[in-house]
Amino acid sequence: MTNFEQLFEPQSIAVVGVSDDAARPGSQAVRALRENGYAGRIFPVNPKYETFDGLRCYPSVAEIEERIDLVVIGVPAQGVLPVLEAAAKKKVPFAVVLSGGFRESGPDGVAREQKMLAIAREAGMRIIGPNCLGFANIHSNVYAAFGSITREPKLKPGVVSLVTQSGGFGYSIALACEEAGIGFRHVIATGNESDVDTVQLIDALVDDPETAVIVAYVEGMRDGRALLKAGRRALAAGKPVLLWKAGITEQGARAAASHTASLTGSYDFYRAVFKETGIIEVTEIEAVVDFLQALQGQRFPAGGGVAVMGVSGGSAIVFADAGDPVGLRLCDLSETTRESLAKVVPSIGAIHNPVDLTAGYFSAANQAKLESALNAVLRDPQVDALCVNLATTGGAGSLAAAEVVSRVAASADKPIMVFSSTSPTRSADARRVLAEAHVPVLRSPGRAARAMGMLLEYGRARARLTGKAGGHERAAAASAFADLRRIGQPNGTLSETASKAILAAAGIPVTKDVIVKDVDGSAFDRLAAPLVVKIVSRDIPHKTEIGGVKIGIETREALHAAIREVLANARERAPRAQVEGVLVTEMVRGGFELIAGVVNDAVFGPVVVVGAGGIYTELLRDTACRLAPFDERTAREMLDELKCRAILDGVRGSAPLDVAAAARALSALSQFAWESRDVVSEVDVNPLFVLPDGVAAADALIVLRETVKQPAAQELAVQ
Amino acid sequence: MTNFEQLFEPQSIAVVGVSDDAARPGSQAVRALRENGYAGRIFPVNPKYETFDGLRCYPSVAEIEERIDLVVIGVPAQGVLPVLEAAAKKKVPFAVVLSGGFRESGPDGVAREQKMLAIAREAGMRIIGPNCLGFANIHSNVYAAFGSITREPKLKPGVVSLVTQSGGFGYSIALACEEAGIGFRHVIATGNESDVDTVQLIDALVDDPETAVIVAYVEGMRDGRALLKAGRRALAAGKPVLLWKAGITEQGARAAASHTASLTGSYDFYRAVFKETGIIEVTEIEAVVDFLQALQGQRFPAGGGVAVMGVSGGSAIVFADAGDPVGLRLCDLSETTRESLAKVVPSIGAIHNPVDLTAGYFSAANQAKLESALNAVLRDPQVDALCVNLATTGGAGSLAAAEVVSRVAASADKPIMVFSSTSPTRSADARRVLAEAHVPVLRSPGRAARAMGMLLEYGRARARLTGKAGGHERAAAASAFADLRRIGQPNGTLSETASKAILAAAGIPVTKDVIVKDVDGSAFDRLAAPLVVKIVSRDIPHKTEIGGVKIGIETREALHAAIREVLANARERAPRAQVEGVLVTEMVRGGFELIAGVVNDAVFGPVVVVGAGGIYTELLRDTACRLAPFDERTAREMLDELKCRAILDGVRGSAPLDVAAAARALSALSQFAWESRDVVSEVDVNPLFVLPDGVAAADALIVLRETVKQPAAQELAVQ
Repeated sequence: MTNFEQLFEPQSIAVVGVSDDAARPGSQAVRALRENGYAGRIFPVNPKYETFDGLRCYPSVAEIEERIDLVVIGVPAQGVLPVLEAAAKKKVPFAVVLSGGFRESGPDGVAREQKMLAIAREAGMRIIGPNCLGFANIHSNVYAAFGSITREPKLKPGVVSLVTQSGGFGYSIALACEEAGIGFRHVIATGNESDVDTVQLIDALVDDPETAVIVAYVEGMRDGRALLKAGRRALAAGKPVLLWKAGITEQGARAAASHTASLTGSYDFYRAVFKETGIIEVTEIEAVVDFLQALQGQRFPAGGGVAVMGVSGGSAIVFADAGDPVGLRLCDLSETTRESLAKVVPSIGAIHNPVDLTAGYFSAANQAKLESALNAVLRDPQVDALCVNLATTGGAGSLAAAEVVSRVAASADKPIMVFSSTSPTRSADARRVLAEAHVPVLRSPGRAARAMGMLLEYGRARARLTGKAGGHERAAAASAFADLRRIGQPNGTLSETASKAILAAAGIPVTKDVIVKDVDGSAFDRLAAPLVVKIVSRDIPHKTEIGGVKIGIETREALHAAIREVLANARERAPRAQVEGVLVTEMVRGGFELIAGVVNDAVFGPVVVVGAGGIYTELLRDTACRLAPFDERTAREMLDELKCRAILDGVRGSAPLDVAAAARALSALSQFAWESRDVVSEVDVNPLFVLPDGVAAADALIVLRETVKQPAAQELAVQ
Repeated sequence: MTNFEQLFEPQSIAVVGVSDDAARPGSQAVRALRENGYAGRIFPVNPKYETFDGLRCYPSVAEIEERIDLVVIGVPAQGVLPVLEAAAKKKVPFAVVLSGGFRESGPDGVAREQKMLAIAREAGMRIIGPNCLGFANIHSNVYAAFGSITREPKLKPGVVSLVTQSGGFGYSIALACEEAGIGFRHVIATGNESDVDTVQLIDALVDDPETAVIVAYVEGMRDGRALLKAGRRALAAGKPVLLWKAGITEQGARAAASHTASLTGSYDFYRAVFKETGIIEVTEIEAVVDFLQALQGQRFPAGGGVAVMGVSGGSAIVFADAGDPVGLRLCDLSETTRESLAKVVPSIGAIHNPVDLTAGYFSAANQAKLESALNAVLRDPQVDALCVNLATTGGAGSLAAAEVVSRVAASADKPIMVFSSTSPTRSADARRVLAEAHVPVLRSPGRAARAMGMLLEYGRARARLTGKAGGHERAAAASAFADLRRIGQPNGTLSETASKAILAAAGIPVTKDVIVKDVDGSAFDRLAAPLVVKIVSRDIPHKTEIGGVKIGIETREALHAAIREVLANARERAPRAQVEGVLVTEMVRGGFELIAGVVNDAVFGPVVVVGAGGIYTELLRDTACRLAPFDERTAREMLDELKCRAILDGVRGSAPLDVAAAARALSALSQFAWESRDVVSEVDVNPLFVLPDGVAAADALIVLRETVKQPAAQELAVQ
């Protein structure tokens, strides 16, 4: 693994492409390095100049005698490769290629990017870019960048590192944070990500002692498993990752052979990774700002009970409305708490939750009373977090309140937030005092509630995921995988019989059945009616549509007729299909239909999907997914996410269904998906009946990888 | 109807309760009137002073000789009634009671509020408050208010009027708008709303020529029908209403006899009113600010096609992500448009949508090119709206862009928005230019998309609702209503037979059935098997639970057995129920189960609800509702809102179902609900089968009003 320290803290930087034209990327980089006081050595490179900006200017990288930790390249595209070759010769470990004119610009650019990568790979050099705004280390004033990153306002130092695939939009996020007083460690715009990508940088930032929180803006990635790994490392290190996955509406429907695969898109797989890693999803600039402020307190609510205190009843109601969907509730206060409050809250106020301190309460004269009130509420065991609504309180009142809240927050182990609607200039003193105490000030009660909800969810994810292995028992799956190998190289889609046999070997219960070649009543003696009859042919994936299925067969005569009919229908409506026979199965009655399956995604590898089956399947898209393999605990979490989950506990007086068996089946499916990932493209188990006692896969389809077109690797976005 | 002009534009104001204590409400009101330059006459009242703040001070209202248009009362609660009596004698038309100590303070306060109301009613005086911050007319410097409304910053005049039940939180909204440069006409904090309420004020503001947009914050109201009326008037007048309904999580589950009623809460009824009036729902302060800015342009997209142009590809992707759920899509551009763009967009940019102008494009040198590009895109018939992403562009670049965008916007008939992430101080010039041209500047692409989505929805609501009557054909409903009258005064809940008979008379198709008293096979000859048998008793509302239903009866013998069994079960498990007989019905097969019903709400009157039936009913809460009565067009809109709507068009190759018949049945149900509103409390039609040809109500329940406890009138919130 690359040690990124020399990239982040280079002692010397060569900047190739400086020019009298101050707008050129190289010129901007050198200017930013010098104006911001970079302490290392700078080597400008341009054969036309002797000096640049008072520094010795070199005709080429080759002629720089000293060690170079980082080369920043801003020359036109056609000049980039020779510079990289020279840098490779000098064993420069890192390059930032600002120049455009690569993959994003057509076939010539694609070829150029491949050559660039070959040079880097051979030399062991790592490249950021090309076609990027570059990066800045705000602590050490390293500016290997141009454009907005180098312009006013200068970001102040802090603990947040930002990695963004879009320089322009990513820097919009940085600007909004800067306006809110948030400081930065690294800001990295990755451009085409030919070599170093966002996930590798997230992983590197987990190891950066100066980074406490990581923000990433992502349009696509090539290795979803690496995100899973980096996310888990970040969680273990206690460094929250805020991730913005953009481009979710462009993913459209997946062209897929199986039903399960058509229900999901790669956004679902990202969200599965978020659930498995505690990565915090963000989809709005304000949310990034709010969440970063909230995380500064480094305290997480132990539960969803929130107390709201302040001078605006409406604000408390709005907090409750916005808090409800994120798991917060205004908790009851104990009698002890209410007695303490009664001593310091005016009688026309309210000592239940929300606590109404009454208009004008926030004042220098009331500081001691306010401190008692805050402490009383924070001591209450039902209170997991506190929100103080200053609302429109400005000037001296807000400062008086801020001083008390800051003092109380210093020793509190529960998170505290403040809602203030006064403009930052009109409550500057109060905001400064609260900022110093790491008490976040939110601009609306709704934003406060959502930030608090994020703290609750992140804290819960840490508790849930800490030490969780992911599950790797493999006995049954390995044997099923061996069965699959024995089948050899069939033509894309396995028949229902073969699919079910393999899944049964993998530990997934399937319906009892018999395969017959022609009209044959013997199945009637071996199975319990009612029966189902289905045509078996790997050339007929959608059997119902050609009349290849008959259900509810109660008599031997009906069985004969049904076999005759499905064979006739197949001959007539799918004349070119190779029919292997007719499957006679025991019909499953009662229970609830789930649909389950596997999608072997190009970016995320095998992912298991489970959802509500039956006529609501497409309509509700009530699905949950996780990257395989996983244990039964994770499988239960998936089931718990489904909207149809309550039905499994029994509806309208019917018996509860066997959720544990469903979880076992999903976990087994995930083991099989993982073991068979080189061979299997998709698996459909539809329906998977959940019964009062056990589960039964009543139909299944395995699609092999060899002859199935894979989804194209998701293209990385061009900034 | 009250003419509120004297309230809003009083020529003279008496302020009762002025004092040397500058913090007293009366003192604050007089100071605000004088400091802001109120042009009318001010009469301070306090028997202790000869003069107040240089004005003649009166010992009482009675002793003011001149005409008083408005009396503002800030004395302690026990002093309020004598002041009102004196004002009543002088025929003062309006009072603002700032004082607390009324309904919100316990039994004495409730009594005081009732007396207050009696005085006002007798004199024809209208009262704002009590227990409120009062109101301000920003144009005429009328400050009948205290607290934050009278403090810095002073709101600037504008076309927005704000009505709020929470003074504190409502003014937080005003402050956020002020910071964004939005001006106000009236700001009214209504407190207890004993007399004048939010809806009456919205209605009055529709008639105020200086008000162009109305913002309301509401926690509860007593007359939902009045909101429907006021909302329709506002829509007809072209004055958008932004309404924030707070307290939605506190409504909990409704205790109700019928299934339909248990699926809804009053928040659903508010949202039904929004749909019928084009009222724009808001739930976040930033949304109010953004939407007000967007509405200033007074242009609405004709469709969901948006073009995005700018210097940040990421911003365009984020716009698309946020625009998708609100009905926006990045449309294709015509070849003509792309040819025009090719002439003015650099070759490394993109001339498809989103249009990439390339970094650094926004500059004085490129103004002519930018103007051509904008005009070309706006001329494209597929483009309904335009978003220009300045992203991080600041300084001279943003000003150059702003000048062009403003010029183009002046003559464009399509809405244009700008996204800029630079802080207002760093792009002040650009923002000023754009504000003058009424081009909204949003702080994130997501906020721009949501504001554009609001314009689209409001425009569509205007087109859809203009001239819409609400539908009042009443023949069938009136006759059903007569049937209901004939039944007399039964005991709360009508039996299934009676309920179905009445609904059939109202024009709702019901299943064919026969009622028998004991084991009787004659029904077998008159109906087509399979049959259903159900116990009939108005004392057994949930028949399935006591074994009172048998389905799928195919033979005469089975019919006998079933009748015997349900009678025995009723005797055993509901021994005290009065059994009227046994209903034998044709069993409905196929189709799709809806649930429909009526809730006669204390605030909104009769509301019709329709939803997905079957086991998903509780789970999905997939319902739509409208205030009765309504026509078939509205009924179709309700059906179109359901998640299960697609099933009605046929799933898995099954026949499409009769949506028109379902709409007819819902409209008929709404007519019946309206006609019978004084008698009927709830109606349940569950299930309502939608079949390939027609619909059939297979069960029904009518709950009468007389003996059923009504939901308590929603309490008005205390600020």
